[in-house]
Amino acid sequence: MIHAFIKKGSFQDSVSLMLISRKLSESPNVEEISVMMGTPANKSLLEATGFWHPQFSEATPNDICVAIKTAVADGTITEQISEALDAALKALAQGQQGGKRLLKARSWRMARQKLPDANMVLISIAGEYAAELAEQALDDGCNVMMFSDNVSVEQEVALKTKARSKGLIVMGPDCGTANIAGAPLAFANLAPKGMIGVIGASGTGIQELISQITLARQGVSHAIGLGGRDLTAAVGGISAISALRMLAADPQSQVLAFVSKPPAETVRKQVIAEMKTLGKPVVALFLGAQNPVRQEGNITFASTLDEAARLAAMLAHIQQMAAQQPAVCGGKICGLYAGGTLAAECAMLLAAELGLEADRQHQQGSMLNTEGHRIIDLGDDFYTQGKPHPMIDPSTRNQEIARLAQQPQVGVLLLDVVIGYGAQEDPASSLADEVKRLREKRGAAQPLAVIATVTGTEQDPQQRSKQIATLSAAGIAVMNSLPEATLLASQLIAPPLVGVTASAPAMLDGVSVINAGLRSFADDLQTNDISVVHYQWAPVAGGNQRLANILKNLK
Amino acid sequence: MIHAFIKKGSFQDSVSLMLISRKLSESPNVEEISVMMGTPANKSLLEATGFWHPQFSEATPNDICVAIKTAVADGTITEQISEALDAALKALAQGQQGGKRLLKARSWRMARQKLPDANMVLISIAGEYAAELAEQALDDGCNVMMFSDNVSVEQEVALKTKARSKGLIVMGPDCGTANIAGAPLAFANLAPKGMIGVIGASGTGIQELISQITLARQGVSHAIGLGGRDLTAAVGGISAISALRMLAADPQSQVLAFVSKPPAETVRKQVIAEMKTLGKPVVALFLGAQNPVRQEGNITFASTLDEAARLAAMLAHIQQMAAQQPAVCGGKICGLYAGGTLAAECAMLLAAELGLEADRQHQQGSMLNTEGHRIIDLGDDFYTQGKPHPMIDPSTRNQEIARLAQQPQVGVLLLDVVIGYGAQEDPASSLADEVKRLREKRGAAQPLAVIATVTGTEQDPQQRSKQIATLSAAGIAVMNSLPEATLLASQLIAPPLVGVTASAPAMLDGVSVINAGLRSFADDLQTNDISVVHYQWAPVAGGNQRLANILKNLK
Repeated sequence: MIHAFIKKGSFQDSVSLMLISRKLSESPNVEEISVMMGTPANKSLLEATGFWHPQFSEATPNDICVAIKTAVADGTITEQISEALDAALKALAQGQQGGKRLLKARSWRMARQKLPDANMVLISIAGEYAAELAEQALDDGCNVMMFSDNVSVEQEVALKTKARSKGLIVMGPDCGTANIAGAPLAFANLAPKGMIGVIGASGTGIQELISQITLARQGVSHAIGLGGRDLTAAVGGISAISALRMLAADPQSQVLAFVSKPPAETVRKQVIAEMKTLGKPVVALFLGAQNPVRQEGNITFASTLDEAARLAAMLAHIQQMAAQQPAVCGGKICGLYAGGTLAAECAMLLAAELGLEADRQHQQGSMLNTEGHRIIDLGDDFYTQGKPHPMIDPSTRNQEIARLAQQPQVGVLLLDVVIGYGAQEDPASSLADEVKRLREKRGAAQPLAVIATVTGTEQDPQQRSKQIATLSAAGIAVMNSLPEATLLASQLIAPPLVGVTASAPAMLDGVSVINAGLRSFADDLQTNDISVVHYQWAPVAGGNQRLANILKNLK
Repeated sequence: MIHAFIKKGSFQDSVSLMLISRKLSESPNVEEISVMMGTPANKSLLEATGFWHPQFSEATPNDICVAIKTAVADGTITEQISEALDAALKALAQGQQGGKRLLKARSWRMARQKLPDANMVLISIAGEYAAELAEQALDDGCNVMMFSDNVSVEQEVALKTKARSKGLIVMGPDCGTANIAGAPLAFANLAPKGMIGVIGASGTGIQELISQITLARQGVSHAIGLGGRDLTAAVGGISAISALRMLAADPQSQVLAFVSKPPAETVRKQVIAEMKTLGKPVVALFLGAQNPVRQEGNITFASTLDEAARLAAMLAHIQQMAAQQPAVCGGKICGLYAGGTLAAECAMLLAAELGLEADRQHQQGSMLNTEGHRIIDLGDDFYTQGKPHPMIDPSTRNQEIARLAQQPQVGVLLLDVVIGYGAQEDPASSLADEVKRLREKRGAAQPLAVIATVTGTEQDPQQRSKQIATLSAAGIAVMNSLPEATLLASQLIAPPLVGVTASAPAMLDGVSVINAGLRSFADDLQTNDISVVHYQWAPVAGGNQRLANILKNLK
């Protein structure tokens, strides 16, 4: 048996009502309960789910409809639940009054007046009203994050097209998460400020990327959501392309990470073409797609979320290290290795990156020797006949390093430092001194980038971290692995990526938000010191669409 | 002009002499200098490199030959260098007296007497004498680590064959590094004690693996070197196979990591076949080989040293986590996800691991539903019509979890925990409670493994580490990424790997070492509290091979 009642003129957001509904369902004698605003969509839902009661036909979108499934025949249950609902609404209102006072407005106009520099509207009101508010926001020059779902594809395309024409972006509909200039929008994670710009048509995809980037000890500049339909043929990736262009123009975002389900083929081509024009490394994850290639120009394709994050973090680390080395574009790479296997792996990786052939004969320790690039294993018999191994004695390598003074074409020197028992007491210092001498001899006109990896642990007598510190202090880029070292080397000699030049949208310098819908989103922004006004949105004219349209045309 | 002199009867190891030689070469008026023991091999070298002096024909392998290239015509330079050499030898002898007194022996017999439980002989004497000493060691039941090079392939095969017949191993010749039961042998790195057994036919390959395993926060049980020729057709991987069997029998080594250049094809087949019988996960890196497949039974093929280490570390972590979950072999996997993209990636990975097809229709949020395994996106419209999203409200998921009480066939429950703004205040606690209730209902007869990943950062209001702690305390395995989570899930339901049963060789419980050659190797062992006797080896009968043979036959 269904009992029902209506609480008039008490608009609440749907999530608050769901949580209240859940609490009330634990009341005695209640089998199931449904607590919803009386919008047309909710009324259909109440009917479809067997909670309909004739009373509800009178309810407006500003009224709360309560339907109780129970075995109790008389009206006492209605009274009891009505009291419990009032108490819950009161608790909700009180809970929202803690902390700093939140700016509130009852109308769009008031909201704009209270926050004249608002440039973002976060919309989480019922879907049937969301598009109209979004259009209003765009007309007033604000970007839109639309958490709401149940917005039609036609509305989505219309809104995104309008946004594009104004240099704005619509994130969503059904966009669960974003983080713009440190402002957590909706279901957002806080990450250390960093240089990876995240773009995604997937809420938890973005969240997991941020989570894994943080685990990989890098940070995030911005995270832009698109909504799950953005890369379908119907929407055509309008927001994806806007987001890519925005972050391309953003100096903070030096590496981009992109996640979505596999796009429609036409959209895929467009998005990939766009990525290639950005002038920045991009990691792309089209989850579930088979990647025909691993690398396509500046785009690296990943297969899983954690791999995409790890690759983005590695590329970010490489950008950081590249910035500390001199410009040596067009130079040749010379690798002088003490470890034979390290030399072999270095040659193999570099050959793959530069499209060269590694040496197969290994004569005189040469692991790669083509087009002016050379990787040499100085532990080869050719160098160690009657002389100690370079892991024991730095002389041979130091001589080879000194010779680079006469090889101005060499722009990058790759080195390994192998520590542990048996090895030199302090190989880093000797290497650092020799590099310093070499750089002095070559002078400013012949810049040399120097990259090293360290093989060994913290427990080794020489202590890994101390060796790294010595090398770093000497202006040597110390990388975590050979793939990182060779990637940095190839990047340093490559011509810099050239992207479209454009100025970054103002939104990326900081957002001021008008929040319509879930009040807690406004609280979270305020907690993070983001300017926010909570627009206490309620359906116009009590939700009467015809009356609302008349009022709109009167404005 | 070459000046020369001989210092009679003062045997020193080659590395000490090389370092002395380097120091002396910095003396005034010296162009180049060569300081070597008068072995036949060294004499040829002196001749080949232009340092020969007629005096040297009288030198025995126990005499130091000094050749000085200089512009100085008179003998003063000889006097000067002779004094400097004496000083250097004195300094060397003094430097070696620091610390705890090192046990020394002048003969093999004495060395054996001083260290009756010796089970390892570390040989770094000149190559032409190394094989004979190694044979002696094997005959007396000791394993051999042969740092020396210039040992013929025939000798290597003979020694390794003998070792195999006695259940022993020969590491080398030209084996630069090993670490057995915490004993650093030669050029060894110290790693935290752990569960990854490393085997390699490459010195710096082993060192870099250990180094990267440590960076990935795992540890090493043993590192066994093979020598660079072990996997050639001529040697046939004798020591590789012995090492694999030894570590298969070692309870500490739960994951094996193997590195070498691509082996001869016949040897490759044999080694791969052997790896498959071990009953343990193996990561194999044949550096430079194209891997036709990524996975072959228990073998995962890696492409680079850091990837091999990362995979081994991941597998080790999975073993650790598996040990803390109940045995659910043959069970089905049920994934209940709040995040849609997380559910999709989980389904994709699991389908690949189990050889199944992921769901393409996604009806009712089903991402995988085959052979009793199910992955469900509880954020799908089917579950969220009129109810809050599972990231906001745990009810729907908790109901689904509770239902597993009636599904005894489900052996593994996979979960995500998404935190951040907007999400539940403490999703881990609610989940932990529900899992606890479920496990109680199912009882001991229906064990259930539970695996979770956490999406979110340390800066999020719920704090990543706190959520992980709550889940872990409830007996839920928290993995770092979805690939780790799904790999653990598939491993838990798979029949356990069955390996050859054998008892582990005594060497893996701890080594007592007789060191012949480089004295510093003995010092390093002593520093690490390993029983060691330094066998002050010198060529028998002053290096006269004929006389030595007569003496040998008299024994």
